[in-house]
Amino acid sequence: MTALSTRELADLVGGDLQGQGTRLIVDVAALNGACPEHLTFLDGAAAEGKPRTNAGAVFLAEKHRNALGPDSTADLIITPAPLDAFVKAMLHYRPVAATPTIGISPSARISPTATLGQDCHVFPGATIDEHVEIGDRCVIHPGAFIGAGCRIGDDVTIHANAVLYPKMLVGRRVIIHATAVIGADGFGFQFQNGQFVRIPHTGTVRIEDDVEVGAGTTIDRAMIGETVVGAGTKLDNQVMIGHNCRLGKHNAFASQVGLAGSVTTGDYVRCGGQVGVADHAHLGTGCSVGGKAGVHGIVPDGEDYHGYPAGPAKETYRIAMAVQKAPEMRKQLRVLEKQVQELQSRLAELDVLRVHTPAA
Amino acid sequence: MTALSTRELADLVGGDLQGQGTRLIVDVAALNGACPEHLTFLDGAAAEGKPRTNAGAVFLAEKHRNALGPDSTADLIITPAPLDAFVKAMLHYRPVAATPTIGISPSARISPTATLGQDCHVFPGATIDEHVEIGDRCVIHPGAFIGAGCRIGDDVTIHANAVLYPKMLVGRRVIIHATAVIGADGFGFQFQNGQFVRIPHTGTVRIEDDVEVGAGTTIDRAMIGETVVGAGTKLDNQVMIGHNCRLGKHNAFASQVGLAGSVTTGDYVRCGGQVGVADHAHLGTGCSVGGKAGVHGIVPDGEDYHGYPAGPAKETYRIAMAVQKAPEMRKQLRVLEKQVQELQSRLAELDVLRVHTPAA
Amino acid sequence: MTALSTRELADLVGGDLQGQGTRLIVDVAALNGACPEHLTFLDGAAAEGKPRTNAGAVFLAEKHRNALGPDSTADLIITPAPLDAFVKAMLHYRPVAATPTIGISPSARISPTATLGQDCHVFPGATIDEHVEIGDRCVIHPGAFIGAGCRIGDDVTIHANAVLYPKMLVGRRVIIHATAVIGADGFGFQFQNGQFVRIPHTGTVRIEDDVEVGAGTTIDRAMIGETVVGAGTKLDNQVMIGHNCRLGKHNAFASQVGLAGSVTTGDYVRCGGQVGVADHAHLGTGCSVGGKAGVHGIVPDGEDYHGYPAGPAKETYRIAMAVQKAPEMRKQLRVLEKQVQELQSRLAELDVLRVHTPAA
Repeated sequence: MTALSTRELADLVGGDLQGQGTRLIVDVAALNGACPEHLTFLDGAAAEGKPRTNAGAVFLAEKHRNALGPDSTADLIITPAPLDAFVKAMLHYRPVAATPTIGISPSARISPTATLGQDCHVFPGATIDEHVEIGDRCVIHPGAFIGAGCRIGDDVTIHANAVLYPKMLVGRRVIIHATAVIGADGFGFQFQNGQFVRIPHTGTVRIEDDVEVGAGTTIDRAMIGETVVGAGTKLDNQVMIGHNCRLGKHNAFASQVGLAGSVTTGDYVRCGGQVGVADHAHLGTGCSVGGKAGVHGIVPDGEDYHGYPAGPAKETYRIAMAVQKAPEMRKQLRVLEKQVQELQSRLAELDVLRVHTPAA
Repeated sequence: MTALSTRELADLVGGDLQGQGTRLIVDVAALNGACPEHLTFLDGAAAEGKPRTNAGAVFLAEKHRNALGPDSTADLIITPAPLDAFVKAMLHYRPVAATPTIGISPSARISPTATLGQDCHVFPGATIDEHVEIGDRCVIHPGAFIGAGCRIGDDVTIHANAVLYPKMLVGRRVIIHATAVIGADGFGFQFQNGQFVRIPHTGTVRIEDDVEVGAGTTIDRAMIGETVVGAGTKLDNQVMIGHNCRLGKHNAFASQVGLAGSVTTGDYVRCGGQVGVADHAHLGTGCSVGGKAGVHGIVPDGEDYHGYPAGPAKETYRIAMAVQKAPEMRKQLRVLEKQVQELQSRLAELDVLRVHTPAA
Repeated sequence: MTALSTRELADLVGGDLQGQGTRLIVDVAALNGACPEHLTFLDGAAAEGKPRTNAGAVFLAEKHRNALGPDSTADLIITPAPLDAFVKAMLHYRPVAATPTIGISPSARISPTATLGQDCHVFPGATIDEHVEIGDRCVIHPGAFIGAGCRIGDDVTIHANAVLYPKMLVGRRVIIHATAVIGADGFGFQFQNGQFVRIPHTGTVRIEDDVEVGAGTTIDRAMIGETVVGAGTKLDNQVMIGHNCRLGKHNAFASQVGLAGSVTTGDYVRCGGQVGVADHAHLGTGCSVGGKAGVHGIVPDGEDYHGYPAGPAKETYRIAMAVQKAPEMRKQLRVLEKQVQELQSRLAELDVLRVHTPAA
């Protein structure tokens, strides 16, 4: 965490320094919270908004060289990818916390039939049930519950009070955040004699490599077969994935998104917050769904859908704009009706007149 | 888990076999994931969609006898209720996990003043606080917390890390899934001297028999009296039930439904995902509310409501269709206004003309 | 919990008794659930709705003196603030549970490097990690996890299975309900070589004094700097506060509200249930946002916004009313088009006629 001069920061990220290079920078900070001893960065969005900052050093792109205006006294470091550079510098000032050294705590509850790989860390109060298999370098935090027969890959982190029901399948480098629940029974019942009778759910959930599951997110087990979350997919907090859903690779769902049962998605699908998707719907590869949208049926590959019911963004926008005018349209209609009536009665007069015209 | 011939499967469910009956079936599978050694089933929805399957045996209804097309090689087993039959067969291949044999774990935290019935199973790390009364054959999983004075009936299962605040009332055969929270203080405050001051919530929650509460679902305690979840009602994951709500019997709410305070419902009410219900609203017996709908006031018995604000489905649909045309309507209005102006000016000419007509 | 006469109740709250004053009241109850031995109260909302009650005593405002109708036999106690009076009486009948006497449980997991103030109560199965600092009179319930380096003020209550990630800052008199999660990594990734790569989140969450965080609510840590929840702000259950949000003082958010990243709010902001707010939006001081609304950009100070997209309540209401008429408007348009065509053809005839009129 030693201080770096702006010259040293420029060298660290291979950036082009504009300024003395002698200022000493002791930490990173957000654009608006920064002091002269801080490094910050300017991304596209911020650059548009007449940004101001007291930071002593700023990473920014060539095209935003002048975005901070003439009276900025910061040393500028020009780099094609300011955020990437900033993350690199941040890791100099704030090294990621060293991996824990606790090892397997004697007050963790681990079944004798469970197997753990090399260099795992299991905290007090974590529970690992019968016949669980865990890979190398996994970290299981306090209160986490891993049900019987779960199989977990290498380098997985399971945070405090997260719950894996029995027989879940988890790939490598997966992060499961606090209180997330993987594998509760799907919401499937038969209606018999006036009552809902649970359909036994004997399926599972398969989470592929490099997935991140947010805090409070729930992923239900399949009735039979698997509910699948594809490799590299990131789920924010409080997301709900229903039974038998099959998500593709590298999806990104913002918080409070809800998928009903048997939804399928392609790869690189993005959903904004609070999106709802009806059962058996399909979100095509590369499509994106705007926040709060409600999807039925199919979103084609690469399309951008918005609204409720969701439709192509452009069309939805046109409709929303027109709807804003609905009260005005009603007025226009009333005026037109009056005018047309007038015209009709005046024409009627003329007709009467015609009849008495000798020329007729 | 012995293999069964398709003949034996037909006999097991009293179905009508169409095929050799000699194939050996080793497991159940979903329609699209099945291999020739698997049994699957065809329900109404799937039957419409030109279904294909590699399954060796298929349960289906008489009217779908030909749904799989000519080139299907599966043995068909005709039965009036394919799903019921399938569940029966599934339980042959995948018997429900035997009830646990752990008994009362010495490393569960159970108050000496708590009482448990016969044949209960309490896992390590579960907490049962003072004066709790628990019935027979209950299963309490690791990390579950049962607050002081809770009263719980027979055959209840409480999953890992679920939380019952003090004094909750839980009926028989209730299932509470992981991380569900029963009995947090309702969101009630008095605004005094510029601050929100909590209104003490001294009421409770009463969960009747055969209720299922999903993972991450929260049910708040009443200010006074009870928040009630009626017998047989099923709540999916991440559902929110506010203080003083009174749900009837056999309701079914999909995930992320939210009820504000003092909402009442009749029996057999169904809500789709992400439905929101304003405080003091009433959902009538047998009504259903479509996904993402927003309800104020009253939904009459038996009605099907959709949209936001929610209205009768048919009407909401008609409006939604018309709204799609709003941009076109604006165009039509502009055209009409122009046409009417033309007509007005042409009539004006005619009037002028009239004045000079001798006949006039 | 001794019984009080209605006379004694009137004296207790300084109210004006209308009735004998001799009835004995043994407990409080809700308006519709009350028996003759119960006290209840009538607030504005209930008073409008032809209220009925069997309560023996009712607190109500002067202007509602006759709201219960002639055949009510209750003793009435007139008081300017019926709810305040009711809460006062409720605390006589139902004293708030005495603070626990457990002290620091030996089976809580407390790091030797953690420091706790006077008169704290830490329950079995709670985890307090390294270098945590906790103030006086705090209560930490079973299964709660407090990560390394958290700093917590006086008189804080943390309920069962709540999770504080490392380095969180919590003020005084804060209540964190069961399974709430403070400080999970914000949903921030860089898209590199076809994959989402996590942006390290080295910031924290700062919760100011007198905040209440609902069950299942999640508040993400900032990438750098702080996610802030201002003093006196109350968050209901299942609320999501994204990374880098900065909430002002005395906000009140109903359940299932979701804020994306970097949202800012003024003071005294109210949000109804299931409101969604897009990233970088601002909710102005004293504004309110109606349930289910979707906010982009800025809600001005003191404004009341509704709908999706959210706009001023009055305007949104006018538009919603007009939209209800959309099908009718389409009909009107068709009629008008037909009428205008008729007019056009009849005028055409007249023109033809004109040509043959000698006078022309």
